[in-house]
Amino acid sequence: MRASQFYIKTTREAPVEAETISHKYLTRGSFIQQIAAGIFSIMPLGQRSLDKIRTIIREEMNAAGGLEVTMPVVQPRSIWQESGRADTYVPPLAKFLDRREREMVLAPTHEETVSIMGRYGIASYRDMPLILYQIQTKFRDETRSRGGLLRVREFEMKDAYSFDADPAGLDTSYDAMAQAYRNIFSRCGLDAVMVEADSGSIGGKDSAEFALLADSGEDTVLTCDSEECEYGANLEKAEFIKTLNAEEKADEVEKFPTPGLKTIEALAKAEGVSESKTAKAVFYTIDDQVYVVVIRGDYEVNETKVRNLMGGSEPRLATREEVAAAGFVAGSASAVGINSKYVIADESAVENANLLAGANEEGFHLRNVNFGRDWNADHMGDIAAALEGHKCPRCDDGYLKQHRGIEVGHIFKLRTVYSDTMNVKFNDVDGKLQPVFMGCYGIGTGRLLAAAVEANHDDRGMTLPRSIAPFEVVVVAVNMHNNDEVRELAESLYRQLNDVGIETLLDDRVEAPGAKFADADLIGMPVRVVVSPRSIQNGGVEVKHRKAARSDSTIHAADQAISAVQAILNS
Amino acid sequence: MRASQFYIKTTREAPVEAETISHKYLTRGSFIQQIAAGIFSIMPLGQRSLDKIRTIIREEMNAAGGLEVTMPVVQPRSIWQESGRADTYVPPLAKFLDRREREMVLAPTHEETVSIMGRYGIASYRDMPLILYQIQTKFRDETRSRGGLLRVREFEMKDAYSFDADPAGLDTSYDAMAQAYRNIFSRCGLDAVMVEADSGSIGGKDSAEFALLADSGEDTVLTCDSEECEYGANLEKAEFIKTLNAEEKADEVEKFPTPGLKTIEALAKAEGVSESKTAKAVFYTIDDQVYVVVIRGDYEVNETKVRNLMGGSEPRLATREEVAAAGFVAGSASAVGINSKYVIADESAVENANLLAGANEEGFHLRNVNFGRDWNADHMGDIAAALEGHKCPRCDDGYLKQHRGIEVGHIFKLRTVYSDTMNVKFNDVDGKLQPVFMGCYGIGTGRLLAAAVEANHDDRGMTLPRSIAPFEVVVVAVNMHNNDEVRELAESLYRQLNDVGIETLLDDRVEAPGAKFADADLIGMPVRVVVSPRSIQNGGVEVKHRKAARSDSTIHAADQAISAVQAILNS
Repeated sequence: MRASQFYIKTTREAPVEAETISHKYLTRGSFIQQIAAGIFSIMPLGQRSLDKIRTIIREEMNAAGGLEVTMPVVQPRSIWQESGRADTYVPPLAKFLDRREREMVLAPTHEETVSIMGRYGIASYRDMPLILYQIQTKFRDETRSRGGLLRVREFEMKDAYSFDADPAGLDTSYDAMAQAYRNIFSRCGLDAVMVEADSGSIGGKDSAEFALLADSGEDTVLTCDSEECEYGANLEKAEFIKTLNAEEKADEVEKFPTPGLKTIEALAKAEGVSESKTAKAVFYTIDDQVYVVVIRGDYEVNETKVRNLMGGSEPRLATREEVAAAGFVAGSASAVGINSKYVIADESAVENANLLAGANEEGFHLRNVNFGRDWNADHMGDIAAALEGHKCPRCDDGYLKQHRGIEVGHIFKLRTVYSDTMNVKFNDVDGKLQPVFMGCYGIGTGRLLAAAVEANHDDRGMTLPRSIAPFEVVVVAVNMHNNDEVRELAESLYRQLNDVGIETLLDDRVEAPGAKFADADLIGMPVRVVVSPRSIQNGGVEVKHRKAARSDSTIHAADQAISAVQAILNS
Repeated sequence: MRASQFYIKTTREAPVEAETISHKYLTRGSFIQQIAAGIFSIMPLGQRSLDKIRTIIREEMNAAGGLEVTMPVVQPRSIWQESGRADTYVPPLAKFLDRREREMVLAPTHEETVSIMGRYGIASYRDMPLILYQIQTKFRDETRSRGGLLRVREFEMKDAYSFDADPAGLDTSYDAMAQAYRNIFSRCGLDAVMVEADSGSIGGKDSAEFALLADSGEDTVLTCDSEECEYGANLEKAEFIKTLNAEEKADEVEKFPTPGLKTIEALAKAEGVSESKTAKAVFYTIDDQVYVVVIRGDYEVNETKVRNLMGGSEPRLATREEVAAAGFVAGSASAVGINSKYVIADESAVENANLLAGANEEGFHLRNVNFGRDWNADHMGDIAAALEGHKCPRCDDGYLKQHRGIEVGHIFKLRTVYSDTMNVKFNDVDGKLQPVFMGCYGIGTGRLLAAAVEANHDDRGMTLPRSIAPFEVVVVAVNMHNNDEVRELAESLYRQLNDVGIETLLDDRVEAPGAKFADADLIGMPVRVVVSPRSIQNGGVEVKHRKAARSDSTIHAADQAISAVQAILNS
């Protein structure tokens, strides 16, 4: 491709709202153009990189037995009512009335339509395993779209869905997809970690996230610091080993005045004990009911775990008014004397004896509060947030390390969540009707590109790997419009590189050499070949790896240039 | 691909609402699945054909200098206000309020966003010509979606946009696109005719439509029947030579009673004259004002031409009440005595003398009505519908022939319509700011597939050309699960065909031979190879072109089969 016939419109300035490196470089490099918050056009350079990502994804999906389909953006709301998600999906579905007054929604994901395709096509166990995938446009009306392609509202996603006759089949499909994902990320130059994740709005049970560890990520990921242990999970899902002392003998409850002590920190300090000897009470409103959530003073509540414990209803912090109306004394509250129906307890408060807790009386607290004797809870489980330094839940000697991460893929075992509601059934070997076991698997193509930039850049621009850079080589022709020797050599190299199948950009624009070099660095073609009066004087052309220092270019005779380029590309 | 691992779910019955052959066969063949009126999922077989169509389109667009981009489905309504189309686009834009209460629309076409990309990237005449294209999803809320993929609401389109510095540049880009379109249609096995067309909601001036002549089409296309003449136009645009007699001497007006004569036909019959000697009055409401449209009695009004004559406002037939309220006497109406502001006249009524017309008095008509003397019109032009048998407007001896057609492509010279409103400007050679000359060019990929089926089928199913059939060859293995010889030979042929790069489907399903043959015919792979105990007994395998009669298969020795297949594919 000749740059003079291509669309390269780089700028020095990044948009003021750009916070991430990928947003800055993809905009400055004219890969993307913002049309509205979280909505972008893809320009020719971005299109080339995304096409390569799509090709890699297709190859891996096909190799894993996937069949490509395309499902619609606009869908009747009725099918979302069938699955039960019409009103519960987060963020809420964008919807409109069509001209026949039918409610339509913009699909943020495609479990409903793929279930319709599955139930049409699957009659018998012989019709499975089946993996359907698409690379298609979705819309999620996120209010905090930012970061360029990292978090958008309209986005393209590769979403795959597996159909199997039993849990073992689902495991096989899930593992095949996980391996395909590892291959995809590695081919795109991303060192992504696979960690346990919560299933969120998608539903189902097991799920894993692929995260690129990067400071610009919005995700929090915890991994075990032990070299032998592979445990990792995102914040929503991460577990840890809590220190418990339930065997300790329960002492007598003792009420004492604590005037002005409204926080766990202040209380523990005044009493001269660790916060781990206290029970904290936090108020949440769930389905219009105020609950008191009890957790050991040194731990924090994980709202996702609360949601899962409470059957999927979204908790939110109760307002001051709601707390007062429910009869609680904020600052001196506990579950003591409270109807256990409205108490949610973390194991850490349940299995620790003799904790300090509120007396449910202004200015008083209680010593030696014990679960079972002094309070009870109808809702119990692990609702604590894992944090850096907590003990690994899988190995004996590891501790959790906390990272920022970019979610680049997510895989789910849906099991029969959708086959039950959407009626995806098959006849098993005995002719008995059974629900299909489903899985779903997603990668955002645009986010993958942005993540690749987060992981591959320097202060001059992007350093994308050969597999997804828009071009593999740029031939920068210096002053070619005034110098026949330069022009002829540059054109000849361009022809030769194309002939051996190397995707080459010939920078034949009428631009100053400095501008061409800056563009080459910003866009980040893996290899730069400079043809200039000086390079010719020095014996040929200058060849340089994008990641090498400016001074690390080497001069090659014209007839050696192609093999020098190939050597770098294959290195 | 093995059929046992693919998704082939054919049915004998077409959906009851299916009216067109392509709707029936694409549904029966499990190429597409309807999700709502005018909204479809594409199943794996359909995906394969559409992928081939996309590849052909991309190759031709790239060869014509096009650069691929992707623009968003969801757009802020504000950019449609900028272009002036927010409230005027037909059909009305589907819209919703996002969570920040901003008005968003689903884009039915992309002139607005491509203008934004154009104005970002084009600074100087050196930045042109530029052709940007995408293959992308659009939504048009048609109320009469029907015919499967022929007329849908959500659809994928290849839309290209050209940017040039002057009209001559636009002509060059337009011609290049027209040639690319001819190549695309011919490679997809479609014999499409290029005819003049109206620009409709897109705006601009010259435009042409590519139409596949087919009875299932919703378009009406007129072509000249003379072999030397290439004139063709769709109904909205078509012109013709009207017979005129304006030179005739005007005779005296004469009022006469016509009790009970309410139609032109009845009036002409009673008077013993041809309908061409009468002036018909038709009432239209345009922007809330009733107009009388006067046209010679034997011609019909073309509403698109009326719209264009009246500056783009959509005319609709006036109601009985509106006609009465405006003071007209339906059945005896004419423009005589009417304020010329509210009269729209076709040339045929203006340039013919001594016509019969209504007296604007119940039960009376006038003889010898003449334009200029007896009535006047502020709005005059060609507003007549061309019909079969009318004289060709381009040649001397041709007459128009009327056809049903499927619009498979549409190209427009937008000129500066959008560059003016959306501010797409460039500095010319003299450094003067000038508006860019734009063009736009669209092909619906799904409609192209459906049109290809309309043009390529028989009573057993589809006969798509090799270039877009989902597979090139099907190997039907009869009883392969009980017969080692059949299995080994079928597997060996399958391997060999794949090895020479022929896309082959091995029908290895546990199905009766009759079902496999019926599927092969319905889906329509160009070549069918049958491996059966009988074929082996007869000396090898049976090879048959899809379009050949059932009896026209030939037996080939196993080692000759591949070359026999290649011979048919290349024929």
